[in-house]
Formats: sequence, structure tokens, C-alpha cells
Amino acid sequence: MHASTERLLGEFAARRVPALARAVSIVENQRAGVDDILGTLHPKLGRARRIGITGPPGAGKSTITTLLAEKFRQAGLTVGIVCVDPTSPFTGGALLGDRVRMERVALDDGVFIRSMATRGSLGGLAASTREVTDVLDGFGFDRIIIETVGVGQSELDVARTADSTVVVLVPESGDSIQTLKAGVMEIADIFVVNKADRPGADRLRNDVELMLGLRKGASYANVPAHHGVDLRTMRDRAARPADIDALAEDTSWAPPVLSSIAAKEEGITGIVESLDLHFNYLERTGTLRERRRERLVERVIEVAERRMRQRLWDVPAARTWLDGRVSELEAGSATPYAVADDLLSAYGHLVTGTNT
Amino acid sequence: MHASTERLLGEFAARRVPALARAVSIVENQRAGVDDILGTLHPKLGRARRIGITGPPGAGKSTITTLLAEKFRQAGLTVGIVCVDPTSPFTGGALLGDRVRMERVALDDGVFIRSMATRGSLGGLAASTREVTDVLDGFGFDRIIIETVGVGQSELDVARTADSTVVVLVPESGDSIQTLKAGVMEIADIFVVNKADRPGADRLRNDVELMLGLRKGASYANVPAHHGVDLRTMRDRAARPADIDALAEDTSWAPPVLSSIAAKEEGITGIVESLDLHFNYLERTGTLRERRRERLVERVIEVAERRMRQRLWDVPAARTWLDGRVSELEAGSATPYAVADDLLSAYGHLVTGTNT
Repeated sequence: MHASTERLLGEFAARRVPALARAVSIVENQRAGVDDILGTLHPKLGRARRIGITGPPGAGKSTITTLLAEKFRQAGLTVGIVCVDPTSPFTGGALLGDRVRMERVALDDGVFIRSMATRGSLGGLAASTREVTDVLDGFGFDRIIIETVGVGQSELDVARTADSTVVVLVPESGDSIQTLKAGVMEIADIFVVNKADRPGADRLRNDVELMLGLRKGASYANVPAHHGVDLRTMRDRAARPADIDALAEDTSWAPPVLSSIAAKEEGITGIVESLDLHFNYLERTGTLRERRRERLVERVIEVAERRMRQRLWDVPAARTWLDGRVSELEAGSATPYAVADDLLSAYGHLVTGTNT
Repeated sequence: MHASTERLLGEFAARRVPALARAVSIVENQRAGVDDILGTLHPKLGRARRIGITGPPGAGKSTITTLLAEKFRQAGLTVGIVCVDPTSPFTGGALLGDRVRMERVALDDGVFIRSMATRGSLGGLAASTREVTDVLDGFGFDRIIIETVGVGQSELDVARTADSTVVVLVPESGDSIQTLKAGVMEIADIFVVNKADRPGADRLRNDVELMLGLRKGASYANVPAHHGVDLRTMRDRAARPADIDALAEDTSWAPPVLSSIAAKEEGITGIVESLDLHFNYLERTGTLRERRRERLVERVIEVAERRMRQRLWDVPAARTWLDGRVSELEAGSATPYAVADDLLSAYGHLVTGTNT
């Protein structure tokens, strides 16, 4: 390990925020020391609860994130926030506004906010978000909120890195509920209909519940019968439902559809409670361990694939060899498929790392 | 080569549309025969001009695509259209409407429309869009329009697969022109301000031109001086500019900022002309050959990386080995980084393809 990385990790262990910020930058940009940092932090991981917040642009995700962070702080918990906004090319205008809205918590020592740059992240956005989240976890934050605009596959991948995923919808999107594709339904542990005082909010809630019913079938329909808890009305209660303990014994999870008016700070307590309930469910049923185990395997796969790419292309040999074949490709006398096979026969052994 | 693939390629060569549709499906889903199909078509590629259309949701991309297709058909050219809409998880509502709008050309025998499914495409959306486009090129279409909603990195990657990229903007997005990040400015060969009769259209055009001036510096500023062509006014001409021949000798390309009102079918001729002008520029300066050469190299890299992944994970050995290491990962006694290295030392040789 390089001396500067060792020094950085020492300051990091002493919980110094500048060291945290530097470690995050190194990891996000895959700079020298990244493996030492993540390797050193690895045994400390698993302390934080990771909460994903996703939804369409303008749904109020940042406001909800800020209010959740405040609630966690009031409970004495520290909070890390990772903002992922891959929509930057055209709709990135919201980004600045988001950060301004988060100023309420930005000056709090117990809150650390990091926006992810999405370009050039070797190995993809989901991988680098996951690694940055690990750094925050290793630093000791109690809750980590990963906020991401849900507009593409990569955002769904990001959401999958969380323990609990909250999908925020707004009535404006209500008439296109059929477009909530399978991917979204599958990652959502909790639905929040924000701006619930707007026309169409009831219809949106009904539509989501209908879709949950169709998709989840038996499990959703059975919950009320077994426990006397009707998830379809739970959303309307501001306070903790009296029959929450009955629900807490259930071994399946039916995503609740909550309401909020984040601009008026309404409905946030319900989200916090549902998150606790969901985490309780994850722990109780072994799902948490299973999800985290899957995450570890995925991590190894990600790292292995990144290494393969690096080892193949970072040495000049394979690139030079490839440049030498370009004229054949242009002439059509060789296909990219044959050339790729030849390349791997000749240089594929580099990925074992034993020849470099 | 499998007999069924051979039969398919025979029908494909006879220009039978069902064979085309089947070939596209095989390639898009990376089913058996994909390499044979793409390998066979490879020597025939390069005939089509590939035109990328991108921009924010609701900018009118589909309408412009449809109208461009009609113009090309009127000129006796065949047209392939590839629609990429990776925004499906939340905002996919527009998808159906788009396809309905395209009905004007959908029944034309000289037009083939294909929507890309974006999930589970091994190797990424850009790679599979590129390969589908190759199939259309190999079939013999004169023009291929790749329409993609520009809301994320992957969409920019898709746009990069085109010879000419048209970025469509609308006045509504005018006040956030500073959010047109570097990525968009770099891929745009032609800007179109659609809905140009709406308030804010002039300001948007000015903003884009200002940004082009700032970014392109000398080359943009010099064009009027050298050739007497003011690109800043060229957009206002419905007809072919008289001084287009002077412009045609220029060796640098200053992206024009055109206007259109696609709903009224206004401004489409200008786009067609600018596309011709741009293609002429690409050919004249050798940029076309260079871009296509880069595309071939990228293709080899994509194929090689996909092969590496397949060869490593498709055999049970590496997966089984990895599963055996999970408990160490969970206990924190091994890190994903060390395990990935061990895995590649033990199984990395598989990617050479010589051991399978």
C-alpha cells in the first residue's frame, strides 16, 4: 500500500471528513489506491442501512430525501446521501435546484452529501455508486440514502444496490401508470405517491395497488385476511398503525403505497416507519443477508470484469495488435467477430494477471 | 454455421422482410446465430447513411423522424428506423404515441421500423443498437434513422454510432440551456429548434449558438468571414442557400442551428439539406472513413469484452468457485478485490477460448 493511501486511511479511521471526501473521490474516479481503500473498508461494511429513492424527474425525490435525513438526524442517526443524476445531458437543470433544496441538511455535521459524476466511470454507474456507498458505510454512517432519477436501466441498477428502495410517483404521471414497467414494480419495496393533494392522486394510488395486486397475486391479497391489516388503508394513517406488530410477523412483504405532500412536510413519518418495517422484515426473514450476499457476488463479478478490461487494454500490446488489423476490417476481409476471437486467443491470457 | 441460420441468410439476401425481422431479433437478443449473421453481413456494410436523432422527451423527435423518412422515400430512398427508448421505466408513456405517429410511414414497403427493447441486452444498449443498425445496413437500406431519447449516458453512446447526429431541442428547455452538457455539444452535428413558433425559440437558438461559439471558437467564427455564409442566418432559409457550394468546400464543420415546426411539417427540407451537407463534409474530409474506422475498433472491443464475460461466466466452474468463496466475503475475511484477482488467476485463461 502506498504511504499516502495509508495516511489517508488513518485519517479516515479517525473519522475526519476531508479524508472521507478524498476517499470518495479516489473511489469514484478509480484513481490509484481505490482497491486498498475498498479492501481495507470491506470488513467494516454492513453497518449502514442503504435506502434507495427513485422516481421520475420532478417527483420530489430531493425534498423527500432531505426530510428523511432530518428525521434520521432527529433520531440521533448520521446520514450519508449519494445523489445520482444521470439525466444531465438534457434535463440536468434540476440538479442545482436539488442541491439548493438540500441546503437544509447540508450544513449539518452529521450529514454528508455527495453528487456522483456519471461520465467516464469505468465499470458503470451502478458499480461506482455501490463503491461510493461502501465508503460511506465504512466511515460509519447509520443511514445512507441513494437518490437517483429513475429514467433508465442504469438507474434501476443503482436502485438495486439499496437494502430498501422507495419509488416516488406523482399524480402527473398517473395517466401513464401502465408504463411503470416490470423493472420498477420489482425494485419497489415502498411506493410513495407524492403531491398527494393534487388531482389524480387517488387514481394513481389505486392504479399502483391494482398493479401490485395483479403482479403479487396471492401474497398481496392474503395479507389483510391473515393479519387483519389492510395495506390499502394503511397509507391513510398518519400515526403508526395499531396492528403493525401483527404485520411485523409476516414473512412476505407487500409494498405499501404511501401518500406524502413533501412540500408541506406531510407523510414523511409514514415513510420512515415503513422503512423500519421493511428493514425489520429483511432481517427477520434472512432476506437482508441474502441480498447482501448477492451484492458481494455481484461486486466480485464487477471487479473481475473491470480487471479483465484493464488488463487487456491498459497494456499497449493488444491495442497495437488491434490497430494492425483495422485495414482488414475496413476492407471487409475480416469481421470484428473473427478479429475479437483472434485477439482473445493471442492476448486473453493477460487477464489472469500472472503475466503482467 | 447452423442450417437454419444459413437458410435465414439466404432469405435475407433475397431481401425478404420476414427474414430481416428475424435476423434483427436474433441479433438484438444475442441468440444463437448472431455472430454468423453479423459476420456474413460485415463485408456489405457501409452503404447506408446512419442518422441519429436525439433530444429530450417531447421535443418532437418521432414526428421529425417520420417526416424525414417521408422525404427520403419521395427521393426514392429506402429507410430503416431504429427507435431506442431507454426511458421506459417511468416515462415510457410516450412510446405508444410515437409508434402511432409513425403510422404514416409504417405501412410503406420501403420503410422498416424497429423498436429496441432495452433490457437484458448483453453488452449494453449502444452495442446492440449498433448491431441492429448493421443488420439494416446489410439488408440494403439507403438511410437508417436511429431515434433515441437523450436522457442519459447510454443514449449519448447510441447517438455516437451514427454518421450524422441531429439534436432536437424545444423552447421549453430554453431556460436550462446551460444544462446542455459537453456531451451533447460534442455529438451534435446539426441542431434543430423544433416548435420554433413558440415563445422562447429565438432565445434558445441564440443560446445554442452562443454555446457553439464559445466551444468551437475560431472555426465557427471564421466560417462567415471565409465563405460569406452566415450560418447564424442560414437556418431562416426555407430553400437551399445560394452559397451552399462555397460552404461545401469548407474543411471544418460548424453545426448549424435550424428551425422547424414539425407539427406543421415546416423546416424538414432544411434538415434534409443539412444532412446532405454534413455527409458531403464527412466524405470530403475523410472524417467518414475515420469515424467508421473508429466504429470498427470499438466493435472489436465490444465483442471481445462480451466474449470474455461469456467465456468466464457461462461455464459453471468459475461460478461454482465463486459461490465457494462467499462465506469468506460475508465474514469479511476476504475482500471482493482479492477474490476477483484469485478468480482471474484461476479461470482467466478461459477467456482465450482455447480451453473450451
